[in-house]
Amino acid sequence: MPLEALRYDVTPVGLHYLLIHFDIPAVDAETYELHVGGHVHRPLRLTMHDIESRPKTTFAVTLECAGNGRARLSPRPMSQPWLNEAVGNAEWTGTPLGPLLEEAGLKPGAVDVVFTGLDRGVQGGFDQFYERSLSVANASRDGVMLAYAVNGGPLPPQHGFPLRLIVPGWYGMTSVKWLRSITVTDAPFQGYQQATAYHFREVTGGPGVPVERMRPRALMVPPGFPDFMSRTRFVDPGEHLIEGRAWSGLASIERVDFSADGGVTWQPAELDGTASPFGWRRWTYRWGATAGEHELCARATDAAGNTQPIDEDWNAEGVQNNAVQRVHVVAGAPPGSQAAADSL
Amino acid sequence: MPLEALRYDVTPVGLHYLLIHFDIPAVDAETYELHVGGHVHRPLRLTMHDIESRPKTTFAVTLECAGNGRARLSPRPMSQPWLNEAVGNAEWTGTPLGPLLEEAGLKPGAVDVVFTGLDRGVQGGFDQFYERSLSVANASRDGVMLAYAVNGGPLPPQHGFPLRLIVPGWYGMTSVKWLRSITVTDAPFQGYQQATAYHFREVTGGPGVPVERMRPRALMVPPGFPDFMSRTRFVDPGEHLIEGRAWSGLASIERVDFSADGGVTWQPAELDGTASPFGWRRWTYRWGATAGEHELCARATDAAGNTQPIDEDWNAEGVQNNAVQRVHVVAGAPPGSQAAADSL
Repeated sequence: MPLEALRYDVTPVGLHYLLIHFDIPAVDAETYELHVGGHVHRPLRLTMHDIESRPKTTFAVTLECAGNGRARLSPRPMSQPWLNEAVGNAEWTGTPLGPLLEEAGLKPGAVDVVFTGLDRGVQGGFDQFYERSLSVANASRDGVMLAYAVNGGPLPPQHGFPLRLIVPGWYGMTSVKWLRSITVTDAPFQGYQQATAYHFREVTGGPGVPVERMRPRALMVPPGFPDFMSRTRFVDPGEHLIEGRAWSGLASIERVDFSADGGVTWQPAELDGTASPFGWRRWTYRWGATAGEHELCARATDAAGNTQPIDEDWNAEGVQNNAVQRVHVVAGAPPGSQAAADSL
Repeated sequence: MPLEALRYDVTPVGLHYLLIHFDIPAVDAETYELHVGGHVHRPLRLTMHDIESRPKTTFAVTLECAGNGRARLSPRPMSQPWLNEAVGNAEWTGTPLGPLLEEAGLKPGAVDVVFTGLDRGVQGGFDQFYERSLSVANASRDGVMLAYAVNGGPLPPQHGFPLRLIVPGWYGMTSVKWLRSITVTDAPFQGYQQATAYHFREVTGGPGVPVERMRPRALMVPPGFPDFMSRTRFVDPGEHLIEGRAWSGLASIERVDFSADGGVTWQPAELDGTASPFGWRRWTYRWGATAGEHELCARATDAAGNTQPIDEDWNAEGVQNNAVQRVHVVAGAPPGSQAAADSL
């Protein structure tokens, strides 16, 4: 998502970030069936018509890739080289998962709920369909849904057509796309994407800590206009309304601070209300730009006291890097300044 | 565009390639005006209502970035590192440009038509709005339109909302987005994006040849499924229907050839009809995969005899690299093969 798209509360389709782990599978919605089984009393087979006939819910959810910020780590872990742009806040429509699990009837001793996609590939030496799990308690939470529409339109192929999981608050790898089956287990799920990948490891090959909920982050729309190669920004000296969005999967956003000197001094930004309990929150700051170079930063803090680190926490997979955003801005005339601005 | 999206004749929004040169500008369609001026008898100021009230046309157009294939050059020129995926075939709706230019009335001596976007940035040392030109003859050609809708819906921000140029047959840099003005000149246009950028230069700093029409290219949907890191593909031995699309901006596609041995031997593929004179053409080939490793290639040839080179033509900007696609495929069991495939 190009960061200027932070200006939209609801991210338009085509600007929302995408992480296609393997390939986008081709799915025929007419013959599609979701299988719900495993450690349940009443296994279910549901067509899209069955699913669309169930109770319906719609709300905005901020989804962020666990690898957002990876490219800022040094040495750079091998995988998708995101800077800060792997995020989006779309309006998802679907049916709540909790009641569906109740209908299937979890047997005593149920532990995890495994979500298996139709997307297949080899990773870590394993031929696999992409799959991730949630504990029974987390799968039954408010807000977890099986979604078949986004921003009021049908799910496009790249977002999981015809059916995907949406798990508010968690990094995006949890919201399994192109759902093929939901399987309840009576033992902890040990699949590759759960037990091996998506761990915060300070040492390559270490046991690490599983990646789960999104850490707090604030991002701003980079002000002014860019230099094509360096991406340095140019603004006129004077007042600028800086706007951005902030979110946390751990608690609600409580404050956002802004710095124009690379994080040496901070000023509180204004926070707008939230439109969705699962969506990001808009913030603004009136910045008086003096002529010269500046490094703009934003830092979010949530109600549980979690805040963003100033520097990167290196880790082997390059996940959960929520170090503060840094935007290099020059207030003053850009090189080769013409009458371009005046002719508007 | 992930290459599995070659399976769609019309590329869904969100899968079509994007090249955002500077930033996506925020435009208010209510107050938007297109200015048509310069060397004309009757300068025009048109609102979106004016433009949408004019004659309307809809057809699919294959657009490809001039830098498609850049990442395959060595040394790799600095810019967007596309492999082969910078392409798409969307259905654009708008009003033909030719009649609009007639209405403005070109004065004798008109040479170029300059299209200026609302997107601003610094490149090559110049502060500029993105702008490109066409000769009067090329701007008046059939198919050139001012588009305000794509795939039956309103233009999303990233595709040039509220109005963009569409120039069938030319590389995408010509189809200026977020159109601000159209200016007819009485001398050749010498703007940065026209006279300096977008040239095929065998020597860095050389004069080069302007990049204009798309060279022929055929691409296939990579068969089977991928290894996450190497992107090597795995298929079962046996027959596979390979499908893809082919296009050329120089003439219609006349043939596509397929090779399973890295381009040593070639077999003709089957060509489907074309749905749009400006859109790509589907092709298929029944490939009998023997166990082992294969390098699949496809090569398009157009009616003017232009075909794809086997090897890359290095150039300083990394443009127009239409060397044949190469897909590394292993027919046989992938590493860590489980019962995954069987359980489907």
